[in-house]
Amino acid sequence: MQNFVFHNPTKILFGKGTISNIGPETTAFSNKVLLVYGSGSIKKNGLYQQVTESLQNAGAEIVEHPGVQSNPLLSHVRAGIALTKTHHCQVVCAVGGGSVIDEAKAICAGAMVDHDVWKFFTGKKSITSTLPLTTVLTLAASGSEMNSGMVITNEETNQKFGFANKHLFPKASILDPEATFSVPANYTAYGAVDAIAHVLEFYFTTADPSTPVQDRFMEGLVINAMESCDRVLADLHDYQGRADLMWTATLALNGLTGAGLGKVGFPMHMIEHSLSALYDVPHGAGLSAIIPGWMRHQSEITPKRFAQFAERVFDCRNGSVEEQAQMGINSLQKWFEKVHSPTSLQALHIPTQDIPRIAENALALAKVWRMPDYDNGRIQAILAGC
Amino acid sequence: MQNFVFHNPTKILFGKGTISNIGPETTAFSNKVLLVYGSGSIKKNGLYQQVTESLQNAGAEIVEHPGVQSNPLLSHVRAGIALTKTHHCQVVCAVGGGSVIDEAKAICAGAMVDHDVWKFFTGKKSITSTLPLTTVLTLAASGSEMNSGMVITNEETNQKFGFANKHLFPKASILDPEATFSVPANYTAYGAVDAIAHVLEFYFTTADPSTPVQDRFMEGLVINAMESCDRVLADLHDYQGRADLMWTATLALNGLTGAGLGKVGFPMHMIEHSLSALYDVPHGAGLSAIIPGWMRHQSEITPKRFAQFAERVFDCRNGSVEEQAQMGINSLQKWFEKVHSPTSLQALHIPTQDIPRIAENALALAKVWRMPDYDNGRIQAILAGC
Repeated sequence: MQNFVFHNPTKILFGKGTISNIGPETTAFSNKVLLVYGSGSIKKNGLYQQVTESLQNAGAEIVEHPGVQSNPLLSHVRAGIALTKTHHCQVVCAVGGGSVIDEAKAICAGAMVDHDVWKFFTGKKSITSTLPLTTVLTLAASGSEMNSGMVITNEETNQKFGFANKHLFPKASILDPEATFSVPANYTAYGAVDAIAHVLEFYFTTADPSTPVQDRFMEGLVINAMESCDRVLADLHDYQGRADLMWTATLALNGLTGAGLGKVGFPMHMIEHSLSALYDVPHGAGLSAIIPGWMRHQSEITPKRFAQFAERVFDCRNGSVEEQAQMGINSLQKWFEKVHSPTSLQALHIPTQDIPRIAENALALAKVWRMPDYDNGRIQAILAGC
Repeated sequence: MQNFVFHNPTKILFGKGTISNIGPETTAFSNKVLLVYGSGSIKKNGLYQQVTESLQNAGAEIVEHPGVQSNPLLSHVRAGIALTKTHHCQVVCAVGGGSVIDEAKAICAGAMVDHDVWKFFTGKKSITSTLPLTTVLTLAASGSEMNSGMVITNEETNQKFGFANKHLFPKASILDPEATFSVPANYTAYGAVDAIAHVLEFYFTTADPSTPVQDRFMEGLVINAMESCDRVLADLHDYQGRADLMWTATLALNGLTGAGLGKVGFPMHMIEHSLSALYDVPHGAGLSAIIPGWMRHQSEITPKRFAQFAERVFDCRNGSVEEQAQMGINSLQKWFEKVHSPTSLQALHIPTQDIPRIAENALALAKVWRMPDYDNGRIQAILAGC
């Protein structure tokens, strides 16, 4: 196990009926609230009313910043920062999935400085303080509700960039599984894929896989993501399934899985960010198209690790290490297919002649994320196997 | 899954060479430091010097409160509180295992009030604030370094009482596996038993075991506790084994395993606290003497849960549910025997005629912990099977 610091101060309020806590949890910081949300689906399912009532009952003055889209855009972040400054908001409340929460984090950081917020993403400036953030989660996927990461797309440069900073942890996050009942089957599956990808990135990229404590935790999360997603796809209102999937996705990227693994990378996300920046595919769909190909590529380098995964997650106990590894990858791919998440570029209608362009875009992120072992040729080789 | 709030703000600094951080982590709160430690073994192994040097380099004025014993005593807590008040200490630094950290927590709470600290333990007063606490852990066992619980023995009344309060989380804890190299084999095993007991208490007492996410996490921790303990007993200086055991023990009781399980109990600890209050046996040794008997008793009530445990932890896949359950319990007992942790009252030289007295003492704690399903007769029946 490698040395690590683990410090996750986010308060989680989990379960049925917890949304009424968002008011007091938010106004504990200030009653000048910027409310960030997406396309308005929360107005259809009643969540908007629950949240604003709770905020108002707690004495909040609400300034609204709606219209966050999936793969949230830098221009919209900038507009939110301007709104925050104009109205002197002192706390931000995000109601949505990872995109909404990520944009809210960027606003929390950008509101504290005079320079452009994108400088944080390109590494030209560092975050030293943020406005406090509270969240109400509506999609089990990104883990943003309990971590310090955020991802924003710069539509001028076609760059989808992300990073983590300790000031970006939400102060409190409300996780009510019922708030995810209206997520359709395809996005439920994409969310589960995203959670699985977060686990696999760490699991397969650690340079020192002598981490049995973390391994078993991660293997359990992958099994739980699949089992709970299966339950939900059989019945979108299955509370237990929604709850298990929600908590799994949160734990999949709250810092605990990676603590002790040393340097890890996000190669699958690195390549997928390029896909969703260029083609606006759903993040989880882009991931499932990349994952099997990346795994086949990587399993030739570290087959033992893949064999352990195959044995513990899919009970593949027979064959050589290499055969076990392949059986594990095939089993995961079959599960992606079962939940109708695409498993190839072709399934996303992305032509193979675009591969050089995708690789070039991904390479820019590989540089920002300091992944020197991924050059253009390697990324193209991986994409050719997807 | 049941509703829950999870909020664990303790900062963990884990790994080789991290002890030099204790100075700045502590004086970040104040330079008036009460240093709490045990019998002086930290002076023999060099830890005392490392810690005091780091504190002094960070500008600390140190007041020492040594002499904490295992099963820490109320009288010694009171002396620590008096010392803190006399010297106006504003932060407490604990260097030791669970006993030292628990006593330090009691001092942190008691230093803020004029009434006697024991009133917190009997429920007559509630903790509303504490002095900040930092810790350097020297024993993988109790989990106190990352939780809000504490246990103190009142030697006047022979009561070993404990409880949790959100103000009791340490601010920062240093977990350097090398600081546990000098723990002898027997206490290493007792520590692993304690960690396993913490997991099993929740795992087997939840009234609503529809918690697959938590289940797999807990099952993994039990396997890891055994495997890492085995490694360490083969070589007390095995860094990886010490690291895995240390992190396992911390995760076994940091709030995450129980989050979502609803109401759980500590029946094995409830009975063991009576043993160690009356006979001063090591806590882990008392636990392994109780656990198999309690498990046999409980498995008649919830055999399915025990069968799942047997299958996933010990790979027992054959037989009826009841047979599987028994195989799992036997396997765990065999592991306790393998690491030379006692598995009966007899092995602790406690005569069976003492059972009524032990049960009577345990019952007092059952009342404080609000476990009405444990009456004197039931506790005696369990003890008769130990």
